[in-house]
Amino acid sequence: MFLRIDRLQIELPQPKEADPNAAAAVQELLGGRFGEMSTLMNYMYQSFNFRGREKLRPYYELIANIATEELGHIELVSASVNMLLNGPRTSETRAADPVSAPLESAKDVRNTHHFIATAQTTLVGNSMGQPWRGDYVFASGNLILDLLHNFFLECGARTQKLRVYEMTRNPAAREMLGYLFVRGGVHALAYAKALETLTGVDVKKMLPIPKIENSVFPEARKFEQQGVHRKLYRFSPEDYREIGKIWNGPSPAGDGDLEVVDGPPAGGRLPDLAEIPAEFAPEYHPAEIYEIAQKLTARAR
Amino acid sequence: MFLRIDRLQIELPQPKEADPNAAAAVQELLGGRFGEMSTLMNYMYQSFNFRGREKLRPYYELIANIATEELGHIELVSASVNMLLNGPRTSETRAADPVSAPLESAKDVRNTHHFIATAQTTLVGNSMGQPWRGDYVFASGNLILDLLHNFFLECGARTQKLRVYEMTRNPAAREMLGYLFVRGGVHALAYAKALETLTGVDVKKMLPIPKIENSVFPEARKFEQQGVHRKLYRFSPEDYREIGKIWNGPSPAGDGDLEVVDGPPAGGRLPDLAEIPAEFAPEYHPAEIYEIAQKLTARAR
Amino acid sequence: MFLRIDRLQIELPQPKEADPNAAAAVQELLGGRFGEMSTLMNYMYQSFNFRGREKLRPYYELIANIATEELGHIELVSASVNMLLNGPRTSETRAADPVSAPLESAKDVRNTHHFIATAQTTLVGNSMGQPWRGDYVFASGNLILDLLHNFFLECGARTQKLRVYEMTRNPAAREMLGYLFVRGGVHALAYAKALETLTGVDVKKMLPIPKIENSVFPEARKFEQQGVHRKLYRFSPEDYREIGKIWNGPSPAGDGDLEVVDGPPAGGRLPDLAEIPAEFAPEYHPAEIYEIAQKLTARAR
Amino acid sequence: MFLRIDRLQIELPQPKEADPNAAAAVQELLGGRFGEMSTLMNYMYQSFNFRGREKLRPYYELIANIATEELGHIELVSASVNMLLNGPRTSETRAADPVSAPLESAKDVRNTHHFIATAQTTLVGNSMGQPWRGDYVFASGNLILDLLHNFFLECGARTQKLRVYEMTRNPAAREMLGYLFVRGGVHALAYAKALETLTGVDVKKMLPIPKIENSVFPEARKFEQQGVHRKLYRFSPEDYREIGKIWNGPSPAGDGDLEVVDGPPAGGRLPDLAEIPAEFAPEYHPAEIYEIAQKLTARAR
Amino acid sequence: MFLRIDRLQIELPQPKEADPNAAAAVQELLGGRFGEMSTLMNYMYQSFNFRGREKLRPYYELIANIATEELGHIELVSASVNMLLNGPRTSETRAADPVSAPLESAKDVRNTHHFIATAQTTLVGNSMGQPWRGDYVFASGNLILDLLHNFFLECGARTQKLRVYEMTRNPAAREMLGYLFVRGGVHALAYAKALETLTGVDVKKMLPIPKIENSVFPEARKFEQQGVHRKLYRFSPEDYREIGKIWNGPSPAGDGDLEVVDGPPAGGRLPDLAEIPAEFAPEYHPAEIYEIAQKLTARAR
Amino acid sequence: MFLRIDRLQIELPQPKEADPNAAAAVQELLGGRFGEMSTLMNYMYQSFNFRGREKLRPYYELIANIATEELGHIELVSASVNMLLNGPRTSETRAADPVSAPLESAKDVRNTHHFIATAQTTLVGNSMGQPWRGDYVFASGNLILDLLHNFFLECGARTQKLRVYEMTRNPAAREMLGYLFVRGGVHALAYAKALETLTGVDVKKMLPIPKIENSVFPEARKFEQQGVHRKLYRFSPEDYREIGKIWNGPSPAGDGDLEVVDGPPAGGRLPDLAEIPAEFAPEYHPAEIYEIAQKLTARAR
Repeated sequence: MFLRIDRLQIELPQPKEADPNAAAAVQELLGGRFGEMSTLMNYMYQSFNFRGREKLRPYYELIANIATEELGHIELVSASVNMLLNGPRTSETRAADPVSAPLESAKDVRNTHHFIATAQTTLVGNSMGQPWRGDYVFASGNLILDLLHNFFLECGARTQKLRVYEMTRNPAAREMLGYLFVRGGVHALAYAKALETLTGVDVKKMLPIPKIENSVFPEARKFEQQGVHRKLYRFSPEDYREIGKIWNGPSPAGDGDLEVVDGPPAGGRLPDLAEIPAEFAPEYHPAEIYEIAQKLTARAR
Repeated sequence: MFLRIDRLQIELPQPKEADPNAAAAVQELLGGRFGEMSTLMNYMYQSFNFRGREKLRPYYELIANIATEELGHIELVSASVNMLLNGPRTSETRAADPVSAPLESAKDVRNTHHFIATAQTTLVGNSMGQPWRGDYVFASGNLILDLLHNFFLECGARTQKLRVYEMTRNPAAREMLGYLFVRGGVHALAYAKALETLTGVDVKKMLPIPKIENSVFPEARKFEQQGVHRKLYRFSPEDYREIGKIWNGPSPAGDGDLEVVDGPPAGGRLPDLAEIPAEFAPEYHPAEIYEIAQKLTARAR
Repeated sequence: MFLRIDRLQIELPQPKEADPNAAAAVQELLGGRFGEMSTLMNYMYQSFNFRGREKLRPYYELIANIATEELGHIELVSASVNMLLNGPRTSETRAADPVSAPLESAKDVRNTHHFIATAQTTLVGNSMGQPWRGDYVFASGNLILDLLHNFFLECGARTQKLRVYEMTRNPAAREMLGYLFVRGGVHALAYAKALETLTGVDVKKMLPIPKIENSVFPEARKFEQQGVHRKLYRFSPEDYREIGKIWNGPSPAGDGDLEVVDGPPAGGRLPDLAEIPAEFAPEYHPAEIYEIAQKLTARAR
Repeated sequence: MFLRIDRLQIELPQPKEADPNAAAAVQELLGGRFGEMSTLMNYMYQSFNFRGREKLRPYYELIANIATEELGHIELVSASVNMLLNGPRTSETRAADPVSAPLESAKDVRNTHHFIATAQTTLVGNSMGQPWRGDYVFASGNLILDLLHNFFLECGARTQKLRVYEMTRNPAAREMLGYLFVRGGVHALAYAKALETLTGVDVKKMLPIPKIENSVFPEARKFEQQGVHRKLYRFSPEDYREIGKIWNGPSPAGDGDLEVVDGPPAGGRLPDLAEIPAEFAPEYHPAEIYEIAQKLTARAR
Repeated sequence: MFLRIDRLQIELPQPKEADPNAAAAVQELLGGRFGEMSTLMNYMYQSFNFRGREKLRPYYELIANIATEELGHIELVSASVNMLLNGPRTSETRAADPVSAPLESAKDVRNTHHFIATAQTTLVGNSMGQPWRGDYVFASGNLILDLLHNFFLECGARTQKLRVYEMTRNPAAREMLGYLFVRGGVHALAYAKALETLTGVDVKKMLPIPKIENSVFPEARKFEQQGVHRKLYRFSPEDYREIGKIWNGPSPAGDGDLEVVDGPPAGGRLPDLAEIPAEFAPEYHPAEIYEIAQKLTARAR
Repeated sequence: MFLRIDRLQIELPQPKEADPNAAAAVQELLGGRFGEMSTLMNYMYQSFNFRGREKLRPYYELIANIATEELGHIELVSASVNMLLNGPRTSETRAADPVSAPLESAKDVRNTHHFIATAQTTLVGNSMGQPWRGDYVFASGNLILDLLHNFFLECGARTQKLRVYEMTRNPAAREMLGYLFVRGGVHALAYAKALETLTGVDVKKMLPIPKIENSVFPEARKFEQQGVHRKLYRFSPEDYREIGKIWNGPSPAGDGDLEVVDGPPAGGRLPDLAEIPAEFAPEYHPAEIYEIAQKLTARAR
């Protein structure tokens, strides 16, 4: 079972401007083969399908706990895509005249489904508009192979994130990316350490892949300075207390010890998505539907 | 952000026997168009993409909260599939001789990926072995349309669950189904009530679709007798306190009032999945890897 | 069995200009999940698969008859896409020199298949160039659920049509859209009324979804003024005489009674698609092939 | 535009028995790459997208008219699949007890979607349960290439039909197959003749592919004895009067002249699909819904 | 078994400029339904699956040998795509600062996977970014039908190549196209001749489809002047000596005799792909990895 | 460019019996995500897309050379599937009567396309009948990441091969598997060694994954006794002479030194696939087509 906290793992800054093609590119990091839907679902199903859970508890808990963090990552990347699609939009009191073709510019964007299907919000697909697929999930049941896969997956995901970073300067994307560079680094290291215990191979020595430090990126450096790269959050009220058996020892960066943090990060506010009458979202005359909700709220008191 | 509790929403009984084709059929309820991956991801992305959240808070919270419950549903259906694939298996102390073709019977099962890819555990696909797809998610941004969709989705999901119930007597499947008949009924009613507030149409009067009561099924009746059909659990430590503005009033069954329960259900133990050396899961000689884990645990103390 | 009349349901005006990206966007309404291929095939297969046809004849006939109208809709949307792709093109007496790169501009359009595969005509796919899929068809066999689905499908289709309307001012698109707003409204109302007879729920009161009247759009208003929104055409020489048992009573718009029209609308001329030598369609030297056809015609007389 | 006649092109005999795996195999001929959905949609979109229609009218009309016949073929194959799925089923007055697992045998069939999704009726997919796809449509705009494609498509379709014939003896399948062997032969010959007029190549001399005569099959021989192999039906009240410019001359079988028949064949009755309460189709208690329909009918008189 | 020669079938000229959208268009000729992956894999699997190889040896060898030539075609088209993506790029001694968004322009290209996934190199997909699929392969086992298919496939492939030629003037694309026009012509003629021996139909008389001669194109004319259109290369050290039983007689162009050339063409140098530090390919600091390779080479001596 | 030698890498023994479901399972190793199509195409496109080829020549050649060996692997697995589908079939002098339903048993096999589409031969798909997809190819351009991927891919492929070995005792499958266990081991080791040179990490120490030695399997042991596990064949007449800079040193098995073999293995005869008149392959009356081929051969002499 899961609980939800209505906050993002970090707060995202206002976008500089709406940039639908940047949003389309960032979709790769959500719904692509190496996107957050993939990391989430790989670890989630590996945790559902884990054999020998009691005897291999630290490994099970590591995977199950990281899966839970990844739920917050699909939320965070979705928020970033939404901000890129909407820009610094404010509330619209009046509906646009649809006859004036208020969505005309959308005809030339790369991902028309953002405008026709989801009213300028996230899709569960990649940067080419192709849907995420359940067969992106790898869960062989062989623990070493699954950990090797996860290590590779994190490195592949990092590579693609680095490239998307280079494709847009929009802060609503880059802040998310900086944070995920750091958290992805934690996950890659965690899987490397787990793999090392089982094989004796010093896998973590391969990191980072590609060979560029997170500290090159101001948005990541900031989080490293807060020690975020040394922390594994325990995303459970009571469980996953054995993850520290794998996540411990000195940080490879030589700046302190790895630590398990008891509970989620403080997080930040969810971004607000204003109404867009031209998209009929939440309705063509939003005021009417807002009034109904207000009455509902009043009545319920 | 999300937290995880290492328990199923209910405890599942031992399967009568391994039944790979029953497992393959139950996959429809996980990874099919009307499976739990779909209900989960539809509501999840609708919550990420919700416009006018502050002004429409009860609606937002209803969707966001049900999405969180659905995370527990993919976990529950996965557990059921796993139990059907494994049967009342016990720990195997010795590896089978692979030359003796220990997986020979798997050649004729309907879903060979269960044996070749996942070591007899769940796949993220449907009863035909086709992967779940991100374009099963509908999130139009128009609140009325999204609620209508969700109401239809729950009815479609119920229809398919009813049919799968009729395809297997295995208790590891039917217990899960009985519980989900009831929880799906809660969700259908919740969306119907939300839709009614916005349109004035008494949508809930259509229920149940199909016209067969949950109480026909012993595994569902049991949960109704506990009042589970009247409860909307609040799956959050602090948030979603306004769902009661929609979820209130008399139960349509006439047996009491709808109520919001503060927190998740008590839940039950996760099933154990024993090692299968013939599948190399978690390894061919599981004892070796268990020993490593034990040392790890000892050292960490 | 089916018969064909070589006319469009309405005549489309000359396009203002060729607009390949508008054509690409309009494809959503043909081959997308909510496009005319979907409405057509959903109703068509529901009619093929209908259980209890004799005892539920009005319901069967309603679905079977609307399916037949939808055949004309894939034809109409295809014609609109073709006109957008071709613009006000006239006959080309001479072949372009292919070495001069006469298709150079096509390199940057959103849907290159329009130029590489179909010689600037319609594809059976959506606005992202993804093919229509047979699993978009929902035919559960449960009559109430199928009608609920159809009602939802029409509302979803309307939402996407409204958004595409806002993306282009080209009259070759908007005339088609105006007509389909009205016909889609007829279908949504018909399914609502059918559903009401079976459940007692006043489903039609939800309409329109989204909450914007067709009369806002000049191209739809024109058809409403002709009463097209009150008419259900009987698309059969002899059959489907019981559709009036569902399609009757006052129009929700309060402007007269719903009526069954005996036979198809008068319709309009099919648009002409001129040869494009640069696309080798119908050939690189069209004159040669025209001459063969002329001889054939002469000889046959 | 299209009209519909509520009859099959031929009447199908009672099935000997229900045979879900035969039904699954026959699906290839409906929704496979070489199935009737493909022939239908290839010709339909080629007719929508035809360039130079006026100057190439006999070719246009040939394709447009055959497309219309193919609509009746998806109907006919669907009817055959439905009969194989249902067998000689009769009306069920009482609902089965769902707790007794009335669909237990469905767990082991090849296509579980027939039981979970469509209540034992046709799917828009192939013999492996994969959906038909819009990119099976080939419409290059080059008339010679399109005709060559169509000729190849008919030969490929025939090959697969021959093989499916060899896979089942069920008369509900074989009668359909015998008829379609003959009608497919007509279409292959028609495209060969069209191609010959444009290229001078005696394409029809390749036929039949594979080299086995239709007359080997009793169910086809019967139709040949009625001359069905020499007839091209004109599926339109008024149009397509120039198809005879291509479809004329002696039959290759040497048994008479090719002829255009003015109008569709007489056809046969649609099969009845009885209710299946265990599938909730049309409902769990069909009598209730039948009663509503009866009242509707009575009231409307 | 296969051997590889590290040369392209022809040498490609320097591109005029990088042109990512031209590269995206050319992908159709690699990974589209009518691309080189399709011709390759169709013939390859037809050769693997050939029935009666000894008795039908010339036919088998023709297909097996052409399949081998096609391996060089996927290599050649890939090289062309790579050159279009990279332009006249030279070695980059220093890594770009990733914070300066060196890939910003990639945000607006048609195929973002070229930049996010493959570091500006070829994908195994079509011009819409959709993956090549194994079900594009047709291998019916009926020899006449397979040859008819192959003849059609070559004509379809030619049509699409002609159109892509018209979409770009970049010499790195057109040189490849000119060569493949000629080689595709050889393959179409070879299959036509094979088909003629089996059916007596003068299939080759249909060529060229479309009706435009290769000699119209300067890049093809050059190869025709070298007689490349009359040559079938024998791509094997020892085998396929019977292909000359089909490939013989006068060239349809009337300019000499068809001939089998013993061995592959001389070919040309592979293009060099320089490092792109901004893509981390082969690494962010290429010099470091080059140094390791150099030591490796030195040590091994 | 490539050359072809008309031999398998090893000779396969006669199958014990036809076993269509074993054939269907073995398809996973050809067209599944971890099948030979994937290893082939991953390495092939990585070689096409390699950056810095001159400076990183040993790495380039390693990948390019292994890609070439993999061409022989798709051939070998296809041969195995074909033998499983056909069993110890001998020549059929007379055509079966198709009316007697000679393919009736095919109705119940797992992969009906083997019988309807390919006349009992290989498909380019996996064990669920799903097509291989071009997006299974990973070619990031980052050399370390690509090598890490390839190492993981080989380990994943081995795991699935081991499981399929356990699913069938048919020697036509097991001989192929034994050989590929050994060759896959060579490739995994080669990528591990390459990775070690670049990262300093002793990756090969992880092998074998899963932890079961090849020598457990009699069919693999045989090849190890011949030293096949120490040999890297150079699959080129002249090129790839630097692979020995990576492939050298002692065998991890401690039984000698790794060696580069100059040229391909001796290989074995291709299996013969007899005609099946019931499948019309190569034709319904094979004798007729054989006679034509004989005349062709005679004439050509």
